[in-house]
Amino acid sequence: MEALDYLAEERRKAEFDVEEMKIAWAGSRQAYEISDRVSRLVASDPVFRKDNRTMLSRKDLFKDTLKKAAHAWKRIIELRLSEEEASKLRFFVDQPVFTDLHWGMFIPAIKGSGTEEQKAKWLPLAYKMQIIGCYAQTELGHGSNVQGLETTATFDPHTDEFVIHSPTLTSSKWWPGGLGKVSTHAVVYARLIKDGQDHGVHGFIVQLRSLDDHLPLPGITVGDIGMKFGSGAYNSMDNGVLRFDHVRIPRDQMLMGVSQVTREGKFMQSDVPRQLVYGTMVYVRQKIVADASCALSRAVCIATRYSAVRRQFGSHNGGPETQVIDYKTQQNRLFPLLASAYAFRFVGEWLKWLYTDVTQRLQANDFSTLPEVHACTAGLKSITTSATADAIEECRKLCGGHGYLSSSGLPELFAVYIPACTYEGDNVVLLLQVGRFLMKTVSQLGSGKKPVGTIAYMGRAEHLLQCRCEVQRAEDWLKPQVIVEAFEARAARMAVACSKNINKFPKQEDGFAELSADLAEAAVAHCQLIVVSKFIERLQQDIPGKGVKRQLEILCSVYALSLLHKHLGDFVASGCITPEQGALANEQLRLLYSQVRPNAIALVDAFNYTDHYLGSILGRYDGNVYPKLYEEAWKDPLNETVVPDGYHDYIRPILKQHIRVARL
Amino acid sequence: MEALDYLAEERRKAEFDVEEMKIAWAGSRQAYEISDRVSRLVASDPVFRKDNRTMLSRKDLFKDTLKKAAHAWKRIIELRLSEEEASKLRFFVDQPVFTDLHWGMFIPAIKGSGTEEQKAKWLPLAYKMQIIGCYAQTELGHGSNVQGLETTATFDPHTDEFVIHSPTLTSSKWWPGGLGKVSTHAVVYARLIKDGQDHGVHGFIVQLRSLDDHLPLPGITVGDIGMKFGSGAYNSMDNGVLRFDHVRIPRDQMLMGVSQVTREGKFMQSDVPRQLVYGTMVYVRQKIVADASCALSRAVCIATRYSAVRRQFGSHNGGPETQVIDYKTQQNRLFPLLASAYAFRFVGEWLKWLYTDVTQRLQANDFSTLPEVHACTAGLKSITTSATADAIEECRKLCGGHGYLSSSGLPELFAVYIPACTYEGDNVVLLLQVGRFLMKTVSQLGSGKKPVGTIAYMGRAEHLLQCRCEVQRAEDWLKPQVIVEAFEARAARMAVACSKNINKFPKQEDGFAELSADLAEAAVAHCQLIVVSKFIERLQQDIPGKGVKRQLEILCSVYALSLLHKHLGDFVASGCITPEQGALANEQLRLLYSQVRPNAIALVDAFNYTDHYLGSILGRYDGNVYPKLYEEAWKDPLNETVVPDGYHDYIRPILKQHIRVARL
Repeated sequence: MEALDYLAEERRKAEFDVEEMKIAWAGSRQAYEISDRVSRLVASDPVFRKDNRTMLSRKDLFKDTLKKAAHAWKRIIELRLSEEEASKLRFFVDQPVFTDLHWGMFIPAIKGSGTEEQKAKWLPLAYKMQIIGCYAQTELGHGSNVQGLETTATFDPHTDEFVIHSPTLTSSKWWPGGLGKVSTHAVVYARLIKDGQDHGVHGFIVQLRSLDDHLPLPGITVGDIGMKFGSGAYNSMDNGVLRFDHVRIPRDQMLMGVSQVTREGKFMQSDVPRQLVYGTMVYVRQKIVADASCALSRAVCIATRYSAVRRQFGSHNGGPETQVIDYKTQQNRLFPLLASAYAFRFVGEWLKWLYTDVTQRLQANDFSTLPEVHACTAGLKSITTSATADAIEECRKLCGGHGYLSSSGLPELFAVYIPACTYEGDNVVLLLQVGRFLMKTVSQLGSGKKPVGTIAYMGRAEHLLQCRCEVQRAEDWLKPQVIVEAFEARAARMAVACSKNINKFPKQEDGFAELSADLAEAAVAHCQLIVVSKFIERLQQDIPGKGVKRQLEILCSVYALSLLHKHLGDFVASGCITPEQGALANEQLRLLYSQVRPNAIALVDAFNYTDHYLGSILGRYDGNVYPKLYEEAWKDPLNETVVPDGYHDYIRPILKQHIRVARL
Repeated sequence: MEALDYLAEERRKAEFDVEEMKIAWAGSRQAYEISDRVSRLVASDPVFRKDNRTMLSRKDLFKDTLKKAAHAWKRIIELRLSEEEASKLRFFVDQPVFTDLHWGMFIPAIKGSGTEEQKAKWLPLAYKMQIIGCYAQTELGHGSNVQGLETTATFDPHTDEFVIHSPTLTSSKWWPGGLGKVSTHAVVYARLIKDGQDHGVHGFIVQLRSLDDHLPLPGITVGDIGMKFGSGAYNSMDNGVLRFDHVRIPRDQMLMGVSQVTREGKFMQSDVPRQLVYGTMVYVRQKIVADASCALSRAVCIATRYSAVRRQFGSHNGGPETQVIDYKTQQNRLFPLLASAYAFRFVGEWLKWLYTDVTQRLQANDFSTLPEVHACTAGLKSITTSATADAIEECRKLCGGHGYLSSSGLPELFAVYIPACTYEGDNVVLLLQVGRFLMKTVSQLGSGKKPVGTIAYMGRAEHLLQCRCEVQRAEDWLKPQVIVEAFEARAARMAVACSKNINKFPKQEDGFAELSADLAEAAVAHCQLIVVSKFIERLQQDIPGKGVKRQLEILCSVYALSLLHKHLGDFVASGCITPEQGALANEQLRLLYSQVRPNAIALVDAFNYTDHYLGSILGRYDGNVYPKLYEEAWKDPLNETVVPDGYHDYIRPILKQHIRVARL
């Protein structure tokens, strides 16, 4: 029996092979198949239902989350899922929970900073979840500036122990996920103090709760930090507060992969290069970029489908009104976001390659690409998460009033996503790091040091500072080399101009401080160039499937030209393009929208999201929106009674003019 | 006893008279005094506490809201508050509730569209709240397009009644605030059908619930539409769904101020001009712009205070770290928002004058300014609400991680504010209306019809299309006439360019459709010019108080130059300014930030918000943030027990490796 499909007509319009696009999106046939299978597994399991999530009280939500985590673990064991499958399963359960930190931060921290001995001791316990860990770095008064952490770990040579202590209120650990109510252990970052001397911040494995009764161990004060943005969303997570009152741990619970303290109390650096930690950072940021493409594509999928369902104005002779997706203003806001989802997906895939590449280099003691890789991953983390956060809210607005309902799924998606702009490096702080890297690159031009990788284009700065864009007709903007040169010229010119202005200051540091906003803008230009270039490079590879490559080429142009229009001031003011060429780019963009339009629904179908994962009535695959919205409304707790609780005390006295004597 | 004030040092830096600025902000000494008195009244009343609001379940939140509404009404009666004071009291209670719609929409609808007879009958009941009303316009399938509403009101000449009916699912009334659980009456908008003929959409007073037992009357299905964005926020409001099954009302419950149906069933227009309804629209939109400046200033107050409390990086020799408000990147994001708050405040004040002006003209049958007034209010509603929504989220990000906590107040402020971008005209739809008005104005240039009011500058289009900006040094950008001409030239050039491009299309309507994104951009340019101009005009008035005018001049320049930088592409591509002049503007902007910095705290103190109204630990007047954040955390329901509910069922089985046999 064919299910009702209000979007079937839209799906028939597609000019490409959707199944092949699903594989291109997933990265490989295998990745697609795992994703498809696991997402259906989760969607069909009643324990993983999430449709009432935003109505639960904090305690009920938290308990529901614990239940899902336990059930997920049970299914992972029962089905003997591979590491990749298990990770996908947790992903599709789609509810922030302590296991995210256990697998995503606690275990990697031990892997990355522990000695072989430490790994052999702790990792098996963690893999079996006989201990549950979290990552306790940020403090109430200290976020971005890790070197400013106040928690101390003082070595006591008499007992061969470290004394972990929170000397001030602001040194309270604050924010770590999984800490508040669940974790039995934590990797705690603290200042290593020995003989009164401060040896900087290091990681320590500290047990927090008894494995018998889950009570906090002596000297430990721990709890949840309270409600966060939104209903549902991140409130399923027990972000925690933690204070230490002289808690003692054995010396060998300091993570000693990089630095050690010996039995004699001697502090020493290991011969393992410190740079190895960058490998983990690249890994984490690559994951964040991949997550950005997931969150963005999810919002875009909802907004695109509902834009095809929803009709407003333009009725002729009593016929149906116009689908809002046919309005250019809607296309002009929606299609660049659709294109961004694909762009971020591909740059995320490329970052996976970069991680492999940098890991191999580090193992071969080749640190030459590290500064470039560091700048590139920091910048991509920043621009993709910022763009995604904005885009989710834009998608909500694109759904009109109904996007404001929890049942649209978009409010919760926004609330749960936005921390990505702050964690693992505040986005503005990261841009400034990229900016500094750019200034260093500019200052070394002509020194014989050749820029490599994503910054290689700066080696052609001389050309880029004077090149003239050759666009004469709108369709000239479809040429990849034209796009790339315009983006390269913009990035190079902004970086060079910024460098010149900084050099006007007597002290360079004052220049950096005063011109930091310009630095951040130059960094954005550089990072957008990377995304555009990697999209174009992806298109130079073989992409099977009827029409698939063609669609991706269109989206790539939409991505680049919409950025160009948004940042027209950069391009025109720096003389990379003329105002007329800017107008031609805009004209071409409009023509491209018409080419995206018939394929829009199929392009979001290619993300292959189940209705369970989407969690949105507006984004339903079958487009059957209005009856389901109506049905959903009656489930609200307020509708349990016809006359609301409070009527007799608070409404009736008003209506009956008894308010003066009412007891309120 | 002096209370602890961590921001005292900041307050001492102020270079102007804060008390006088409070009056400038409030609009008059009287407005300031009322506001000050009523806000303290609310803040000191325990019934109006809202600090646990985001933790309440939907039902508890709703009951708490009913209690506050009843208590507010009781206090209004007991204290014999004036209409203005009562309205302020509801404002400072700061919790969306049915009375907002009763006073803000139901009563104005009757006032605006009822006959004298109808007003005499219904208004006294409404003023005493013997009936409670809401405004039932939008439907499940119909928002922006009011003419597309499906609810019918069919005249039955036999009984002299209208039969109100919901013929389809999508005709269900959907969204009206106060409808879901409280209102006894509604003004319902429905298509008037007579003898099978459709006479368009009109308003009807319909009783929904019994005044005896509050049960819905026969034929009426009514309920709440469910959870909305965020926790707390708009979930205190019973936005409702309503269906009619052939509900009969007397003929005289059609609002007949403008059109009538006689006893004989004859449909006729009254001799009252239809344009009178525009007066109400100007009134409502003026209120929305005023609300924008309140919401924005509230977010800015929180972010500014916390930026002075918070320190990150830059510690020298173990001294304190740098206040984040001293970073240029922070100033570059924060100070334009501070300036926008003042800009929106003053343009809102000007709209009050415009409302008086247009009302007088309408009463004198002078409709000449209506199109301009309509475009101006539509555009200002659009750009101020969009900017405010974005700014609240930006302020949240400016608070770093802690902005994500509910106790920062910013998540709830965002969630409760954003509907303003959609209600009373979707912001994009409104911009397109402004765009069409601009196109009409351009097409009439040279016809002898002189543009008036906010569009008067188009009368000088010839000059504006070829003028050259004369800025040679950064400080030239401080001259008001230089700013105004640049903004006028940009707006005029964008409108004319857009018009030319539209005229290239064989059918003008196709041009409007294809170039709608350009039209919206031209509209933004026009509206930003209005805000800038009105700020400058305000500064030409007498403004008492030491240094007050000077500070406002600085903020005015910050507002204008930050817009110029943000939209540099418009200014440079249209040739209004050169890239070099753009760079000088940016340089001047940086210098202005240094002048704002010492006054920043005093500038947000001037909003005169109580800690109760702000509802933010980060924004506390005394800056005592961290101890209070810490204290607040322990109030979360999750912290009621040390070991969380669910430990035995879901955590222990994992740790003890009993998960396979666990019953989940």
